[in-house]
Amino acid sequence: MAEKLKKPQKLKARLPRGLEDRDPAAIRATREMVEKIRAVYELYGFEPVETPAMEYTDALGKFLPDQDRPNEGVFSFQDDDEQWISLRYDLTAPLARYVGERYGTDGLVLPYRSYRVGYVFRNEKPGPGRFRQFMQFDADTVGSATPAADAEICMMAADTMEALGVQRGQYLVKINNRKILDGVLEACGLKGEESAGRRLTVLRAIDKLDRLGIDGVKLLLGDGRWDGGEEGKGDFTPGAKLPPKAIQIVLDYITSTGEDAAEKLDRVRKSIEQVGGDTSGTSELTQVLYICDQAGYSKEQIAYDPSVVRGLEYYTGPVYEVELLLDTKDEKGRPVRFGSVGGGGRYDGLVSRFRGEPVPATGFSIGVSRLQAALTLLGKLDTRPEFGPVVVTVFDRDRVADYQRMVASLRTAGIRAELYLGNPKNMGNQLKYADRRNAPCVIIQGSDEKARGEVQIKDLIEGAKAAAAIASNQEWRESRPAQFSCSEADLVAKVREVLARHDVTWG
Amino acid sequence: MAEKLKKPQKLKARLPRGLEDRDPAAIRATREMVEKIRAVYELYGFEPVETPAMEYTDALGKFLPDQDRPNEGVFSFQDDDEQWISLRYDLTAPLARYVGERYGTDGLVLPYRSYRVGYVFRNEKPGPGRFRQFMQFDADTVGSATPAADAEICMMAADTMEALGVQRGQYLVKINNRKILDGVLEACGLKGEESAGRRLTVLRAIDKLDRLGIDGVKLLLGDGRWDGGEEGKGDFTPGAKLPPKAIQIVLDYITSTGEDAAEKLDRVRKSIEQVGGDTSGTSELTQVLYICDQAGYSKEQIAYDPSVVRGLEYYTGPVYEVELLLDTKDEKGRPVRFGSVGGGGRYDGLVSRFRGEPVPATGFSIGVSRLQAALTLLGKLDTRPEFGPVVVTVFDRDRVADYQRMVASLRTAGIRAELYLGNPKNMGNQLKYADRRNAPCVIIQGSDEKARGEVQIKDLIEGAKAAAAIASNQEWRESRPAQFSCSEADLVAKVREVLARHDVTWG
Repeated sequence: MAEKLKKPQKLKARLPRGLEDRDPAAIRATREMVEKIRAVYELYGFEPVETPAMEYTDALGKFLPDQDRPNEGVFSFQDDDEQWISLRYDLTAPLARYVGERYGTDGLVLPYRSYRVGYVFRNEKPGPGRFRQFMQFDADTVGSATPAADAEICMMAADTMEALGVQRGQYLVKINNRKILDGVLEACGLKGEESAGRRLTVLRAIDKLDRLGIDGVKLLLGDGRWDGGEEGKGDFTPGAKLPPKAIQIVLDYITSTGEDAAEKLDRVRKSIEQVGGDTSGTSELTQVLYICDQAGYSKEQIAYDPSVVRGLEYYTGPVYEVELLLDTKDEKGRPVRFGSVGGGGRYDGLVSRFRGEPVPATGFSIGVSRLQAALTLLGKLDTRPEFGPVVVTVFDRDRVADYQRMVASLRTAGIRAELYLGNPKNMGNQLKYADRRNAPCVIIQGSDEKARGEVQIKDLIEGAKAAAAIASNQEWRESRPAQFSCSEADLVAKVREVLARHDVTWG
Repeated sequence: MAEKLKKPQKLKARLPRGLEDRDPAAIRATREMVEKIRAVYELYGFEPVETPAMEYTDALGKFLPDQDRPNEGVFSFQDDDEQWISLRYDLTAPLARYVGERYGTDGLVLPYRSYRVGYVFRNEKPGPGRFRQFMQFDADTVGSATPAADAEICMMAADTMEALGVQRGQYLVKINNRKILDGVLEACGLKGEESAGRRLTVLRAIDKLDRLGIDGVKLLLGDGRWDGGEEGKGDFTPGAKLPPKAIQIVLDYITSTGEDAAEKLDRVRKSIEQVGGDTSGTSELTQVLYICDQAGYSKEQIAYDPSVVRGLEYYTGPVYEVELLLDTKDEKGRPVRFGSVGGGGRYDGLVSRFRGEPVPATGFSIGVSRLQAALTLLGKLDTRPEFGPVVVTVFDRDRVADYQRMVASLRTAGIRAELYLGNPKNMGNQLKYADRRNAPCVIIQGSDEKARGEVQIKDLIEGAKAAAAIASNQEWRESRPAQFSCSEADLVAKVREVLARHDVTWG
């Protein structure tokens, strides 16, 4: 339109906290990881399923560890019909809804092994390495109550770590059983439904052992703890208010005494038996460990760890966690411990919310984003920049269609190529662009070359080598010129030669 | 715990309207499509970038066609700090924010060719084939004002359709230029900023030509239209209130008269010139068509179509649309026209909202979900169910660890395999399960076989063939038994033979 536009009010381009953009190297690495995990899961007979990013809030339920805080941890909005919808906070709750909808129909073959990968969303306070959108990769078996199902998940977790290049001894799949802890707490007097709340508080306290250490957990088992480490500093998390003797029993149970796992398990079973408690937890755990052992998995891969409890409320029996045992340094040289990169457990009550009948289920979730950050720091993912396309420059702006035709001929030959689309007035800018794009070579055709039916090929990789070797190796430079002419008809063949000489391939 | 649980209130397992779960065949087909599209875009030198699913609402802007309706079309919620956040409704607005944040820094090489794939969300009234979450695959070039950039996008769209198996003649990339329509409207007297609203109404009316036909568009150019087709039926959409003569000019322009495209373009240019209007639209379009032609793309692939306008407000010049020309029948035998499966255009104002300086950009979006539905109906995607895993049955429930070891040996050999994890008491149920899982074969080891160090392999594919050929070919059935024994040590080798015999492979 002819009217002069009013100067628009300038918007600020920024993302909300806890969200991030991802670059080509990160995207490629995720794709690589996802493909490797998928291959393991499919080998185990798990089949893919995908649910949408949002669900009815009531169908998801409230099982996040921080549900007691004012912010419920999920992103929610109301639909036209006033019903609340939330973004999924994990991939387990949507699976429960999926199965609940199809249970007992021909659409669902039981036991149902499935996997799914996708982004989940947490409306939490973001922090370093703590995002509000991150990727999870889950596998679950629904409709099987046997410990063999739990054992399978643990073995699959171990295989997955190895498929991702984490070697034996660099990871550990740690198993425990919630019912054992329940038994221990019964022995402490925390019985019955009236103590359910306190048992959950104990469980969440233990889940923080990794982060807070034994002293922090002790406070959370007792009167409570200030986030800042001292009274009045930060938020206050109320404790389970266990008596000192009970705190001692719990701490004894969760910390290692150098005792053999089988011995410890036996001792715990006996002490639960003494108070007439439920020992099904110890026998399930023994079976899981036995099956893994018989299938050839060693204690260096899969082992009992009494401190594993998992923070989510819905677990009902076996719980597992994958820990990276490797430490490393971050960019600033500070030590980094990775800790847990995945976990899961049995959740026999989650699907039955929809069915009114028991539906056993067990599953495992890999924190893809978290694991990717760890593998990147450990150098186990290829994050080198790829080569860019061959760049055809524009020497004579009236002949854009000619240059475009050269690009088309390269692409038709399967060679990644592009026309320079910026302002062509300065050839220096075009070469600088090609450099920044990491282009292997550049095509130039001025009017003289055009008249001779030729093109110039500038080999940027050779050029960079030559620049590095400057003066010291005159002869070598002359024998492999970084820029040469060829006939237009030979363009594709000559570019292929340049690419082959430098092993240029694209992912 | 010992207490009896209260019978829980049964939740209804269901998804909000307009959302869907996806099965293995659909997931596999999407993966195939995405990989094929990605390969074309990378060949063109476009690099991946990924932004999160949510953005600040103001950064996304309001550019949806239905923004004039009460429901704004996006899912939004307020952050802790009261700022509004929305789920992205397309992939262009987030790209504009991404570029706006990095423009002029070393983090962004200009011109910037990029692609992205992901789900977008529309808070709209869902309908048949109209979802509130669907996948788009976009490619954009930012920082280039030349028509060569637009031509490249059109050629890439054509190549993408062919890579997806849509043959020449089965699709058409249709191009137009918004400025031409603006010129036509100027000729009708709709000049200047005071007519911007009415020009937009005209544009959206034309965008509905496909769906409403010429009579529907005519109503929308005039007084308006009732959704139900007659007065008082459904919602009322107000019209542009053009005088009859102007309506005729617009309809003449957008409908074909059998005239050659170049002739029509020339005639339109002259009529715009006569009223002193802006003819840059016609000259840009001529250039785009010339570059495509010179690069070897025919009019059967890329052509001028005056009825293409695109509904989004932010386009400023060239607009494109990919139409599937194929018709087919749906499951009920009713004819299905697919129409547009992708589109885009130049949006020179979108990034500049963040910069206060002009930033040219052009791009294209494929509706992956929509195109997948079309390609599935056309039989261009492989949606046959895959083979399931080899199923190792549980004959003797005390020996689960033995059976699990067999499974592990098969998996180690790269054979998809699983242990039957349901209740093992009935072998018939286990075989039925294997059938429903589409397992190629089943492994059975009872106590007799165990004593002899043997296993039974039941070839389910052969069994099905034999059942089909029953009695008619007694000899053939006997020479290739559907069930046979082998030594436990030969398990992997014998299963491999069965798989090879039936060409069983897994994706």
